[in-house]
Amino acid sequence: MTSSAPTLIALLHGPDQRGLVARTAGWIFERGGNILHADQHRDTEYNVFFQRIEWVPVPAVGNPPAGIASVARPPEARVAASVSSSPGLKGGEAGAVDSEAAAFIDFAATLGMVAQVASSTHRPKGTLFVSKADHCFHDLVLRGKAGEFAGDFACVISNHPDLADAARGYGLPFHHVPLAAGTKAAVEAEAQQLQILREVGAEFVILARYMQVLSGGFLQEFGRPVINIHHSFLPAFAGGRPYHQAHERGVKLIGATAHYATAVLDDGPIIQQDVVRVTHRHSVEDLIRKGRDLEKTVLAQAVRWHLENRVLVYGHKTVVFD
Amino acid sequence: MTSSAPTLIALLHGPDQRGLVARTAGWIFERGGNILHADQHRDTEYNVFFQRIEWVPVPAVGNPPAGIASVARPPEARVAASVSSSPGLKGGEAGAVDSEAAAFIDFAATLGMVAQVASSTHRPKGTLFVSKADHCFHDLVLRGKAGEFAGDFACVISNHPDLADAARGYGLPFHHVPLAAGTKAAVEAEAQQLQILREVGAEFVILARYMQVLSGGFLQEFGRPVINIHHSFLPAFAGGRPYHQAHERGVKLIGATAHYATAVLDDGPIIQQDVVRVTHRHSVEDLIRKGRDLEKTVLAQAVRWHLENRVLVYGHKTVVFD
Amino acid sequence: MTSSAPTLIALLHGPDQRGLVARTAGWIFERGGNILHADQHRDTEYNVFFQRIEWVPVPAVGNPPAGIASVARPPEARVAASVSSSPGLKGGEAGAVDSEAAAFIDFAATLGMVAQVASSTHRPKGTLFVSKADHCFHDLVLRGKAGEFAGDFACVISNHPDLADAARGYGLPFHHVPLAAGTKAAVEAEAQQLQILREVGAEFVILARYMQVLSGGFLQEFGRPVINIHHSFLPAFAGGRPYHQAHERGVKLIGATAHYATAVLDDGPIIQQDVVRVTHRHSVEDLIRKGRDLEKTVLAQAVRWHLENRVLVYGHKTVVFD
Amino acid sequence: MTSSAPTLIALLHGPDQRGLVARTAGWIFERGGNILHADQHRDTEYNVFFQRIEWVPVPAVGNPPAGIASVARPPEARVAASVSSSPGLKGGEAGAVDSEAAAFIDFAATLGMVAQVASSTHRPKGTLFVSKADHCFHDLVLRGKAGEFAGDFACVISNHPDLADAARGYGLPFHHVPLAAGTKAAVEAEAQQLQILREVGAEFVILARYMQVLSGGFLQEFGRPVINIHHSFLPAFAGGRPYHQAHERGVKLIGATAHYATAVLDDGPIIQQDVVRVTHRHSVEDLIRKGRDLEKTVLAQAVRWHLENRVLVYGHKTVVFD
Repeated sequence: MTSSAPTLIALLHGPDQRGLVARTAGWIFERGGNILHADQHRDTEYNVFFQRIEWVPVPAVGNPPAGIASVARPPEARVAASVSSSPGLKGGEAGAVDSEAAAFIDFAATLGMVAQVASSTHRPKGTLFVSKADHCFHDLVLRGKAGEFAGDFACVISNHPDLADAARGYGLPFHHVPLAAGTKAAVEAEAQQLQILREVGAEFVILARYMQVLSGGFLQEFGRPVINIHHSFLPAFAGGRPYHQAHERGVKLIGATAHYATAVLDDGPIIQQDVVRVTHRHSVEDLIRKGRDLEKTVLAQAVRWHLENRVLVYGHKTVVFD
Repeated sequence: MTSSAPTLIALLHGPDQRGLVARTAGWIFERGGNILHADQHRDTEYNVFFQRIEWVPVPAVGNPPAGIASVARPPEARVAASVSSSPGLKGGEAGAVDSEAAAFIDFAATLGMVAQVASSTHRPKGTLFVSKADHCFHDLVLRGKAGEFAGDFACVISNHPDLADAARGYGLPFHHVPLAAGTKAAVEAEAQQLQILREVGAEFVILARYMQVLSGGFLQEFGRPVINIHHSFLPAFAGGRPYHQAHERGVKLIGATAHYATAVLDDGPIIQQDVVRVTHRHSVEDLIRKGRDLEKTVLAQAVRWHLENRVLVYGHKTVVFD
Repeated sequence: MTSSAPTLIALLHGPDQRGLVARTAGWIFERGGNILHADQHRDTEYNVFFQRIEWVPVPAVGNPPAGIASVARPPEARVAASVSSSPGLKGGEAGAVDSEAAAFIDFAATLGMVAQVASSTHRPKGTLFVSKADHCFHDLVLRGKAGEFAGDFACVISNHPDLADAARGYGLPFHHVPLAAGTKAAVEAEAQQLQILREVGAEFVILARYMQVLSGGFLQEFGRPVINIHHSFLPAFAGGRPYHQAHERGVKLIGATAHYATAVLDDGPIIQQDVVRVTHRHSVEDLIRKGRDLEKTVLAQAVRWHLENRVLVYGHKTVVFD
Repeated sequence: MTSSAPTLIALLHGPDQRGLVARTAGWIFERGGNILHADQHRDTEYNVFFQRIEWVPVPAVGNPPAGIASVARPPEARVAASVSSSPGLKGGEAGAVDSEAAAFIDFAATLGMVAQVASSTHRPKGTLFVSKADHCFHDLVLRGKAGEFAGDFACVISNHPDLADAARGYGLPFHHVPLAAGTKAAVEAEAQQLQILREVGAEFVILARYMQVLSGGFLQEFGRPVINIHHSFLPAFAGGRPYHQAHERGVKLIGATAHYATAVLDDGPIIQQDVVRVTHRHSVEDLIRKGRDLEKTVLAQAVRWHLENRVLVYGHKTVVFD
């Protein structure tokens, strides 16, 4: 898309019923909007309808029919709907979604649908969590600078000081939040991290090889999407040093999975996966190096899709409108 | 899709304009239909809109509002529109498209769109053209028997007798149409092939490693889609024995391309491509064997998509709604 | 390899020491042999040396220095060495390995190495085990007929009668060995299967989607390699209906793994793995179909490598000299 | 390889004859060396033998049998042999190859083989040529810092000043050599580049999206390997703006090829190739972005293999001992 006109992107889902495609398209059309992309999916097993629509809301935005967005339903319902249904969008935030977006959310509710709407005029800000490994960190920052993402990184948080200089070299504020042993220290560190996220107005977090588990409490308190990357193997390996186990087992493929973080480790809704081939000639070090390359591309793709509002989470899985 | 209700699948395209998604969906909705899938694409460079819609036309089909399909425009226009715009569908054929399909074609024309509509109640019949190589032949027939295709093979035509027994073993009539040298013989052979295609009512042809070029006259006379498979290399090689050239050049990848046949050899709209990795350890024979495997999967995928009405041709390329 | 001269292929491994490459090559050279291929691997973690050598034993074979093969060590040791070290080769079998092969095995033993030697003059015969699914069955048989394998299928054994006609259509004897419930019936069925394997002189078994587990007793009694194919997922799924679980979990890749069968289900040394990409648009049926295609190519590759004596098993993994 | 003992890596090729594997291994063994890896290849069509051997020359190195390396043949022959046969190694350089390496080169010559030998104690220095695009530049430098390459980048040369700050941020000297129009200016610029290469002692050059063609004279004068990366398509496209042409043609795959530069543009021996899948949904900008990612990984792989002395060039192609 090279169009410079502001667009809205809605992700919506709800019980399937006859006429949903016609109704959403009709609503936009009648208000003078022009649909640029529309993609639907139907989960025939659970009878759920999913849709991503991107449209130019001309000339309605800036001059919507009076009262529609504000009257249709109480604001708290809107917030609840969007927060509970998605880790990725900012549906109910006052000011972040203009009145046309709000009107669409109200309209979708009348169809029994939960909707989140993002505006192309708003570039979300996020925070990178890192530890010592720097491959995903450099890759994401350089891609950001190359214009690959529809969002920006506001700062870097790390439990180690190693990447401080590199971050500052990129012009990114770096916050060292060390993690001492013990539950109390962990709680205090997460409180400090949350404080930083609030201060920069972070709307998403990328765990770029951040080697710590975030608590369920942290995820709930933050309330915004957190994307993680981890290695994946066929078969899977429990316990530590998975690359060593994979090498020991003689696997022929190693993989990486990017997913939304949940309170259950490495078990959130999958956004993207990929694999690379290995042979007996590859040492454990080779596997780790190949794993690094995979992690970079898989995480970058997940971040790109997320920021383009292409990922809709429901249940334990994602619909990726690529 | 496991639904047993008959569905219609429309492929349409035309100049982009505001409201097309709303209008097509609205038309179906108002007539009582239920959209199962809808996928759109916009070529922003040429300002062309493309859409594939699959819907259950209940209860309109069988009892359409009187006269719509037959009155809206003269039948010859409908035939011309669908034949000129697509190598794959049967838009304008009397009896093959029921009245609701015809009504949709008429409606699309009012939007300046060319549409073709296929009905799930009709399984198109096609013909396999083969020579001596049997890998694509066996693969396609066995996939057909396994239920992978939304169409059937009615018979086999070959310029060699080699696969006669194998075809009959599958219960497929086999026609040996030898090709003698000379232009006159070629014309006669194509006439004989066309006669067979007419007799079986072939709606598509698959060139499953048929090692002869079909003339522009044949393609025009047949007037239906012909799908071909050929090897592809990076870089490309002109002249004969391409696998030998690729081996000589030390390529690291070999590829295959499935495309609609046109009068220009190996140059029609591409449906599917794939590659496989090779090394210096692979002999020319290995390259050829790997090429065979590629050809099988690439051609099968192209046939599957074509028969599911997922391929829309425009200009020199395809939109594949996969 | 298009050379028509008979070749020997040795797979050997043992504790690494200085000079192994020179010694094995020197032994062959001094006896007048010509090495066509030689590939080595060193497991630096465990200090194990692995080698595959293919050579033309001219003019030694047919007229070897008297007594070397038979004197060097007692035959029972040779058998034990080769059977215990590999699921794939026929190192110690009288008559199946000519005297030069035997001499090489003796020589390797003096280096502390276990060797198996196969002769290109011998095409091993194997048996296909199938149930109802026919995709791997057809694929393997057709590849065999196309000359892709350095071995032949002697017969088909199934616990269901479904593929009897297809097998016979290919000229393959079909044995229906039904499996009634209960331990006693299972033991009797395996005894019947072993009897068939003995009668045809089966040197390997391919489980081409044979949906039964072979007992440890069966594997031990047969004493030859058994290759199995199964689906693989990231993450792995325990329990039944894995494709449904994978669909439920929203995986983006599905995989297949070919491995040597061991008494532990789906856990033997891996020969080959591959994956294919899926999206939310794919139904469970699509996943199963894509899984079928994967299973075919992955199993065929494993069978090809095995029959070309490219797979060396040690510990729980394989070295594949591809 | 985590061994800290210095190793030698020989790449050799010549007319095939009986006993070559035994002789090279025997020579190393007799002088007390220990072979770590040995990989052979035979081009059966042209009857050429290729080998890569890596060994620990203990205790010969540092205390070789007197006179072997220096007596065997005149130094100029050695230089000619290694330079003419390979773009990648430093066979004949005084001081860069120790006496054992020289002795091996002499020995190989007695077998009719051309050999180049690299020592693990020497890390070659190279120069990055860039223009404005920075993706390959950042990727290579960061991989170098991560320890992925067995060599180092000594400086950066560019025809544009754009990447000056980025290079210096990495601690890399940056030389701006602008290219004015006209033949004379081009000759002068190349002379300036060659002067820089001489001053830093560059042993290889990487064209990291350097958008200028180097003359045959430059390549001959430099006399060391120059690795280039370019996009590749199926089919190939002549003329400018290839991504636009590929988009226009509706290709389903785009590729990248890393190769040694020759006087014929984009036509040198191929080191590595890869592709990525695209669809009609991808804009030209998407294709270009995906092409950037491909270029990074393909070029990095080629550089890694080259610096590990895994690439042997002969005729118009490469043997990559991966």
